[in-house]
Amino acid sequence: MTKDKKKQPPLTDIASLGEFGLIDHLTKGVALYHPETIMGVGDDAAVLDNGPLATIVTKDLLVEGVHFDMVYTPLKHLGYKAVAVNLSDIYAMNATPKQIFVGLAISRRYTLEALEALYAGILLACEKYRVDLAGGDTTTSQAGLMLSITAVGQAEKEEVVYRGGAKPNDILMVSGDLGAAYCGQLILQREKEAFKANPDMQPDIDRYAYVLERQLKPEPRRDIIELLRESGTRPTAMIDISDGLASEIKHLCKRSGIGATIYEEKIPVDPRMAQTAHEFNIDPTTCALSGGEDYELLFTIRPRDYEKVKDLQGIHAIGHMGEAQGEAMMYTSSGQLIKLVAQGWDALKG
Amino acid sequence: MTKDKKKQPPLTDIASLGEFGLIDHLTKGVALYHPETIMGVGDDAAVLDNGPLATIVTKDLLVEGVHFDMVYTPLKHLGYKAVAVNLSDIYAMNATPKQIFVGLAISRRYTLEALEALYAGILLACEKYRVDLAGGDTTTSQAGLMLSITAVGQAEKEEVVYRGGAKPNDILMVSGDLGAAYCGQLILQREKEAFKANPDMQPDIDRYAYVLERQLKPEPRRDIIELLRESGTRPTAMIDISDGLASEIKHLCKRSGIGATIYEEKIPVDPRMAQTAHEFNIDPTTCALSGGEDYELLFTIRPRDYEKVKDLQGIHAIGHMGEAQGEAMMYTSSGQLIKLVAQGWDALKG
Repeated sequence: MTKDKKKQPPLTDIASLGEFGLIDHLTKGVALYHPETIMGVGDDAAVLDNGPLATIVTKDLLVEGVHFDMVYTPLKHLGYKAVAVNLSDIYAMNATPKQIFVGLAISRRYTLEALEALYAGILLACEKYRVDLAGGDTTTSQAGLMLSITAVGQAEKEEVVYRGGAKPNDILMVSGDLGAAYCGQLILQREKEAFKANPDMQPDIDRYAYVLERQLKPEPRRDIIELLRESGTRPTAMIDISDGLASEIKHLCKRSGIGATIYEEKIPVDPRMAQTAHEFNIDPTTCALSGGEDYELLFTIRPRDYEKVKDLQGIHAIGHMGEAQGEAMMYTSSGQLIKLVAQGWDALKG
Repeated sequence: MTKDKKKQPPLTDIASLGEFGLIDHLTKGVALYHPETIMGVGDDAAVLDNGPLATIVTKDLLVEGVHFDMVYTPLKHLGYKAVAVNLSDIYAMNATPKQIFVGLAISRRYTLEALEALYAGILLACEKYRVDLAGGDTTTSQAGLMLSITAVGQAEKEEVVYRGGAKPNDILMVSGDLGAAYCGQLILQREKEAFKANPDMQPDIDRYAYVLERQLKPEPRRDIIELLRESGTRPTAMIDISDGLASEIKHLCKRSGIGATIYEEKIPVDPRMAQTAHEFNIDPTTCALSGGEDYELLFTIRPRDYEKVKDLQGIHAIGHMGEAQGEAMMYTSSGQLIKLVAQGWDALKG
């Protein structure tokens, strides 16, 4: 009911700060009152002290029209993915997810059957990764669907791996292959446009099955965490790749206070991703560096642990950490040394 | 991209189930895999086992146009209230809140200054109740503002109080006074209509300060939890009053498997609430029973503890628990015995 609009100072568009800038700005006044809050804002998840055990908590929002498009996102996949991306954050702390909490805001245009499909996906992920749906909140929204998932995990306190633990000369490794989820997104967008132009068209998506599955049904890398544990290797730093490799490497560098150098030719890419990227006239390396949503793990290990992990399935050394205050750099396939730029998916500029 | 719409069976409108019906329906297939999940869906908060300590987790969504109206909700109050209502759930488990996680989805029409006001409210509540803002997620939305708060608390395992612990003849008690938050909402809605009809009108709200504050800035009852603890009384069952007294009594009865009888004349109402209710031709008791958003505590104590608490400030005995399988009943001021009906605020029918 304010009437004096004229007297107000000029206001700031939130898009001008970007997602990370906005979060930094809003949380800079945060005081911590409890010694039990071992890690607050600033890693994949928060770490809370519970005696010998740590409780790991993370939270992700998925918003219709921002993170998913109902035209091409089956609700069961959406439910599965919403859980998967949160579990990915828990694994990225080297912890075991135990419970999830589901917040759901839905407009009235959704039917019960639609929500059943969504929950079927949520519960399928719970079953596969053995997590308990332990609570939540359900309400209406004015427009669209919004899912807010909080995941809670557990770890022995000294087993937790943070973003900031990398040391100079640690080897930088990545799981799986990168860039495919982004290519899947490109295909879905192209099919949506084609469908709008001609609704009778049959979508031609079979030959894109791999990249589509990477986009629609990502799997958090519990298997990698288990492999590393069995090999007796604890990463020195770890993060999951949600915003693209370049952005995540820069996070590790910033939090660890050191630089890193990677080699373009070492970045794992799948030929099916590369083929799709070429169709769109995009360099596959660009997809891997900036595509995002791969939910693979990026981590560092001590050089002396390399022998233990080098033959593990699905793990690739892509470079090494550098000196204090250093930059995140990449040797291109043509031998040039370039600075990595994080142009990852940015919710607030997208 | 489904084209065969004709073949689909008839779909179910979610409004037909109501909020609690929908949650029951969607969560009936929930399996729990971990013995550490002591309490999942079904109480004010989940309870997770961490050795001698329990971790208490709750989550609430606040959606623009559903839970608040930007025309009359100052953003600082909104941030404060969003934290307060979650802390209320933690206190209702007889636990101490320690951390919160803030999920924020915002449309681009919000400025940075608006978000700063929102965070100022969030951090004010954090400071007052000594909780750590330990993480979250920030993203855009297609329309409006949505706040998803997760609160995490701690308690000695045997100190946690559930909804289902009431026994026959336990005394039913309530903190503070009831119905005022709903009356505050009525005033705000009336002023909004008046403002739409005549934007030059000066709102006449000073004499409604009490009910407006109860609506806009509820305080979770940490003080009551502390008073009870100091008196050496542990409630046998407890719930916070978010949907109106009648609805919450029915929850306690259902989870405890017994009935309850309350006395209308014992329900604490503030004269300023009663005056506003009369202005709107509503029975003050109706506001107390069905108004909601009071965030007071409803709890039961053993008869032998009554002497210890009966003189505590701000605590009122309103009745007692009944027999197994009994109903929730009320003796009206005119001496009639009526069945309590939960017609509390229902997000999916509202």
